[in-house]
Amino acid sequence: MQTFHITSPDEALRPIIQDKIDNLNKPKGSLGRLETLAMQICLVQQTLTPSLEHPCHLLLGGDHGIEHEGVSVSPREVTWQQMVNFTKGGGGVNMFCRQHGFDLRIVDVGVDYDLSQVAGIIDRKIAPGTRNFLYEPAMTQDEFDRTIHVGVDLVNECHAEGCRILCIGEMGIANTSPSSIWMSLFCHIPLDECIGAGAGLNSAGISHKRDVLRQALEHFLEQQPPKNSQLSPLNSQLTTDIIRYFGGFEMVAAIGAMLRAAEQKMLILVDGFIMTACALAACRLYPEAQAYMIFGHCGDESGHRRMLDALGAEPLLSLGMRLGEGTGALCAFPLVDSAVRMMNEMNNFDHANITKYF
Amino acid sequence: MQTFHITSPDEALRPIIQDKIDNLNKPKGSLGRLETLAMQICLVQQTLTPSLEHPCHLLLGGDHGIEHEGVSVSPREVTWQQMVNFTKGGGGVNMFCRQHGFDLRIVDVGVDYDLSQVAGIIDRKIAPGTRNFLYEPAMTQDEFDRTIHVGVDLVNECHAEGCRILCIGEMGIANTSPSSIWMSLFCHIPLDECIGAGAGLNSAGISHKRDVLRQALEHFLEQQPPKNSQLSPLNSQLTTDIIRYFGGFEMVAAIGAMLRAAEQKMLILVDGFIMTACALAACRLYPEAQAYMIFGHCGDESGHRRMLDALGAEPLLSLGMRLGEGTGALCAFPLVDSAVRMMNEMNNFDHANITKYF
Repeated sequence: MQTFHITSPDEALRPIIQDKIDNLNKPKGSLGRLETLAMQICLVQQTLTPSLEHPCHLLLGGDHGIEHEGVSVSPREVTWQQMVNFTKGGGGVNMFCRQHGFDLRIVDVGVDYDLSQVAGIIDRKIAPGTRNFLYEPAMTQDEFDRTIHVGVDLVNECHAEGCRILCIGEMGIANTSPSSIWMSLFCHIPLDECIGAGAGLNSAGISHKRDVLRQALEHFLEQQPPKNSQLSPLNSQLTTDIIRYFGGFEMVAAIGAMLRAAEQKMLILVDGFIMTACALAACRLYPEAQAYMIFGHCGDESGHRRMLDALGAEPLLSLGMRLGEGTGALCAFPLVDSAVRMMNEMNNFDHANITKYF
Repeated sequence: MQTFHITSPDEALRPIIQDKIDNLNKPKGSLGRLETLAMQICLVQQTLTPSLEHPCHLLLGGDHGIEHEGVSVSPREVTWQQMVNFTKGGGGVNMFCRQHGFDLRIVDVGVDYDLSQVAGIIDRKIAPGTRNFLYEPAMTQDEFDRTIHVGVDLVNECHAEGCRILCIGEMGIANTSPSSIWMSLFCHIPLDECIGAGAGLNSAGISHKRDVLRQALEHFLEQQPPKNSQLSPLNSQLTTDIIRYFGGFEMVAAIGAMLRAAEQKMLILVDGFIMTACALAACRLYPEAQAYMIFGHCGDESGHRRMLDALGAEPLLSLGMRLGEGTGALCAFPLVDSAVRMMNEMNNFDHANITKYF
């Protein structure tokens, strides 16, 4: 896997930013979370006048070998059908991208269907779906490296066009399954507590999903050399192995995109359960990446809140959403915009001739 | 006080709306709170294709006699200074109105300063501030009636211009004080638990505010005839008396505006602690009005959450904001817009040729 040079934002500007925020025309702290968000954005961009130029949304699609075990309520073909649907503008991701002015890129990273002739889909297919991690690693090392690179490439293109904030969504039937295993291993939370209903499993379905994932995890652990039996500490190699063994192509590409975006000092708007699992994996590899991440929402999938807690992340929205596609993160964008406007448009006490509040 | 003819939305359309929502191209329920919001909006507008034309924001200003008792950290003159500042575009309310396309109307309902020559402020002044409710009713019955009418008039103008969604904000130093007393009386919660820091009181300041408000409330109760000693049941006359005795002009105008908007079947976007207290008062007079209200956020003022709970209201945002001016509600507007877009722009399973999710 390629190396990323990610550095934390320089903190020297913090007191100067705080001073500007505290002198804006409002009681100190009265814009709450918007003020801490503004601080983060200003630190990332190293400025007192931040901007959110050319917001881009990457919609990454991929299929999962584990889907063959019946771990999802929706059949596999929904992945490609939805990818095609997104090109027609009628999906959840489309309407929210239109609403908030995001440039949407629909990318086939590993969908199990030939989409190469569909206008509007960027073809970066690594393979038509991952292998079934109940029996073998989801992808080879070479596939993994190339998938990381897909994410890097996509971000390079956005960055070259002037993008300052990146949102990432996914379409991949069964991708809560690898997310749950990553969560368990990266947060040291028992697997059962990391597994939920996905797109709508009933209790029998969840029970079956638990059995399948427990078996897959046991099989993975059996293959580890004795020194890794506790999976602790999670060194970089072991982390990479876990990502590769269970991850989907769309998920690994998302990790590559996040790491490259952090390297380029872009803001990263993080979506629900699956994208938070990707953010978690990215931060386990490069903890400095988290400073660039804004967690858009806490979704309805059980475990999402605990994963956010494990990251110490405070999501902007909590609306019981679980559609994926990046929709939750997109819905949070206006708040990011509000924080930026606060820094750029709100006058201060001196200019406004207001008796200063305490 | 004038009578309002407010009726609950016709429920006959509910199953048809639900059917449309459930057949949109997403797992059932996966857009969470946006789906319940869409249901509310469609019921209010009695349509499957709702709209949010010409959103208007009323910024109502007024001063409070109780301010003379030192219950606020900010001095009285901040009210008029901020009103003037809003005309220049640099306040919190200005930037969020610009961001979300709201037509802002800045209205002097009872500011203690001559603003009649300030361009951009609508002059509807009833009096230069209310009386001090520590000693006497904040306003006379005649002033109360005229203040309600100010709100009605303002909404009539918005409605005539095609407004379908109304947001209301306030500017009035010390107006958490009457809000706390209303909360206590309308929710039957001990007064102490309804009093918070306002714009930034320290603990000594809060303690003093408690003493003043407790005294004011006791004085009010002493004047009640024996049959009202328990203030229960709260009949319409007693509710009106409570509103009139403690309320600010900007708050009573907000109640008039909310009731008229509900009468006209407009959506009402409710802001923080003070506006929620006004919504509470409006709903105690006309419970049917609540169906038209969307609660934008849960603010940082202690007690706001409990007031929302008493109404059974589920706020869209919870970001620790406490600026007032309607800023919290305005920040929630994009979510209302998202819910409307879901109904109008998202395709359904039939159109998208997607294998239907469960």
